[in-house]
Amino acid sequence: MNHCFFDQAVETMNHQDMRELQLRKLKWQVERCYNTVPFYKKKFDEIGLRPEHIQQLEDISRIPFMDKSELRQFYPQGILAVPCEQVRHYHMTSGTTGTPVTVAHSDKDWKRLAELQARQFIMQGLKPGDLLYQGYGYGTWIGGPSADIGAHAAGIRILPVGPGRTNSTVSWLKDFEANGITCTPSFMIYLIETARNLGIDPRSDWSTLRMSNMGGEAWSLGLRDKIESAMPVGFSAHNQYGTTEVGGPIVAASCQASQTEGYAHVWSDAYLVEIVNPESGEALEAGETGELVITTLEREAAPILRFRTRDLTAFKENPFDCSCGRQAHPLIKWFTGRSDDILKIRGTIVAPRRIEDIITRIEGVGDAWLIVLERPEGKMDNLKVQLELLPSVWEDELGRQDRQRVISSKLSDELGLRVDVEICNPNSLPRFERKAARVVDKREA
Amino acid sequence: MNHCFFDQAVETMNHQDMRELQLRKLKWQVERCYNTVPFYKKKFDEIGLRPEHIQQLEDISRIPFMDKSELRQFYPQGILAVPCEQVRHYHMTSGTTGTPVTVAHSDKDWKRLAELQARQFIMQGLKPGDLLYQGYGYGTWIGGPSADIGAHAAGIRILPVGPGRTNSTVSWLKDFEANGITCTPSFMIYLIETARNLGIDPRSDWSTLRMSNMGGEAWSLGLRDKIESAMPVGFSAHNQYGTTEVGGPIVAASCQASQTEGYAHVWSDAYLVEIVNPESGEALEAGETGELVITTLEREAAPILRFRTRDLTAFKENPFDCSCGRQAHPLIKWFTGRSDDILKIRGTIVAPRRIEDIITRIEGVGDAWLIVLERPEGKMDNLKVQLELLPSVWEDELGRQDRQRVISSKLSDELGLRVDVEICNPNSLPRFERKAARVVDKREA
Repeated sequence: MNHCFFDQAVETMNHQDMRELQLRKLKWQVERCYNTVPFYKKKFDEIGLRPEHIQQLEDISRIPFMDKSELRQFYPQGILAVPCEQVRHYHMTSGTTGTPVTVAHSDKDWKRLAELQARQFIMQGLKPGDLLYQGYGYGTWIGGPSADIGAHAAGIRILPVGPGRTNSTVSWLKDFEANGITCTPSFMIYLIETARNLGIDPRSDWSTLRMSNMGGEAWSLGLRDKIESAMPVGFSAHNQYGTTEVGGPIVAASCQASQTEGYAHVWSDAYLVEIVNPESGEALEAGETGELVITTLEREAAPILRFRTRDLTAFKENPFDCSCGRQAHPLIKWFTGRSDDILKIRGTIVAPRRIEDIITRIEGVGDAWLIVLERPEGKMDNLKVQLELLPSVWEDELGRQDRQRVISSKLSDELGLRVDVEICNPNSLPRFERKAARVVDKREA
Repeated sequence: MNHCFFDQAVETMNHQDMRELQLRKLKWQVERCYNTVPFYKKKFDEIGLRPEHIQQLEDISRIPFMDKSELRQFYPQGILAVPCEQVRHYHMTSGTTGTPVTVAHSDKDWKRLAELQARQFIMQGLKPGDLLYQGYGYGTWIGGPSADIGAHAAGIRILPVGPGRTNSTVSWLKDFEANGITCTPSFMIYLIETARNLGIDPRSDWSTLRMSNMGGEAWSLGLRDKIESAMPVGFSAHNQYGTTEVGGPIVAASCQASQTEGYAHVWSDAYLVEIVNPESGEALEAGETGELVITTLEREAAPILRFRTRDLTAFKENPFDCSCGRQAHPLIKWFTGRSDDILKIRGTIVAPRRIEDIITRIEGVGDAWLIVLERPEGKMDNLKVQLELLPSVWEDELGRQDRQRVISSKLSDELGLRVDVEICNPNSLPRFERKAARVVDKREA
């Protein structure tokens, strides 16, 4: 495997040099947060913490956590550590869970966003001159713009489309001989299904397509395998991770080695991350699943210290060991869910991604499914999975019933609780062009 | 009036220097078109024309015209004068009238797009540090990306939204204290109407808003006045013009002086334009309305020679005389329509923009209207205008009937043919968030 780099010196920096770089940046960031943002000064003063108390990387644990609800109070400008005239771009969270959080980017922030995104594309196998189909959304969302400027910085040709226009896209991928595609995982499976309906076989008709870069929602290794098996030989479905609040989708990404195992490198030169127990806030050991906490080491306009992402992951047992050579950028697991949308059913904790992971691995299961939680009058909560089967399996009535039993038993076994499975008519379940909303919780109704 | 410049040397260049610059660029462009694009070589060879025959600017008339249908044959890459690996961005026409036309941009093209767009924003009164609400569309359309990179180059803060999200926008303009807005004229009037419905008075609640930069469709001086009268004192509704085929919305734009008279400067250092008789193709005198023909002097990836835009305009009588000091960038009239969507009704030629110009100047007329062409069985074609009245006028039944007669008679007088006017219920006619489609031609049904 050929490991390519966008910024080889930083990507292959040794561990000690990286720690020194991180500490220098952390001190710089903490000091300016304290001196320019009253919100941080107040948080520090309340516990008697001063910037000079941060003398080693481990001292970060003395800084209080912050979360999304605190950022909402900074509407409209967002948290700002520069005069607002120095802002170039504003981006926003979707606002689906409350007031949108605005995040400002300075000229320097924007340039770094481009560089980190470019680094991810090159690491994931795109080359200068390749053509990238861009399917992340534009407007206030950071996903599309980040991909555009990153591809530009990497010397990659970009066909910017955004979500939707699915039928045209099926042709464009073929006609433009696209080499890569960026989009949400939900859109990717919708696109594959649409292609097949239009008589296009992704495996042969999109033969130039070597990779997808997917983010914007958590997705499982099962879904990765499902997508890869539909695509040309050698195609890799890559993950990238980040949040609008900390500057965009450039916190972590899978390389060609870690992708096969379901890990992603965190960019140590830009972000200092911790994985903590969501209840106690204490740091967890490598291998233990907890909440990702992010500190921005570089962000100029909107610096963030110890942001609780609510996203659940774990460091790899040996987080700095990867054959690609990025030895100072720790590996974390692809996200398994969020600490605040974990389902609790009859006392059992279930992550929707875990269910997805199981069903996408079962042969014969189609591309659409829903997780439905019900609370029947006077009975215990019920977990039901609605799904579609591939046409060949669906057409066989006996096979269908058999498949229903197999899936139900597999889910119940793996999750440790009873799961009802309902086989639905072909094309009856919703498809998602943007973020998938696969959990229908009827218990709160 | 304070006239600001982004690139003062080029913007205020004298006439003779500009002609020399144009000739040098034209020769460079023609030679590389001939030598690298077989399409151009064939066109030249067919009439025995060679690059060295272009010795003065006037020789451009020896080059054959080209039109959109010819560009369609270059799908998917578009016309290309560089190896495709040197392309960075692709953009496309909408495809509403046929196969979309792809237009490739090199790194250099993209940088120039940003500079020319920045020049337009600064000329139209925005300053570094100002906040621009960006409402042009993203994705394959060039409008949104061009505004983003132009604002960035000018040091303007950008809130990128794109079309839609109208209700949120009404608040954002106020909360972010926006100084400028980019959008289609149709969206602007929809936005004003939505604001009023939400209890926001644009005049007082958007008091920081000084300008709008509007393009993407032709619009009239009447609509300009209507928008300005709804907005804070001193607000200017500016025009910008360009087409995807020649590189974006950066061919021409109104300055603070020409805006009041309904003219726009063509950027001579980037484009050589002609205005020709749509039938004969012959050059017209200043003041005569004809079709705009554009030659790109700089475009690297997708050079265009003598593109027939179908857009109708006229040079100002004294095209190089403007108090703003941009003496080498000729003034053309705001567009009055297109040579191919002119309506012919009972032998009379009518431009839909002409109708819009008339009705938007009549007191009491609301923000929505439609032009309906009918062909009643066995009768002559009929031109009907459906429109809404302002609530105060609508509520007075007698006034309503009176208004209908006044409008009908004014339209018939000015256009020279009978026009039926139908007063519609408030909020019954369509509003447009993107391009308006105000002509309903039922004759072809």
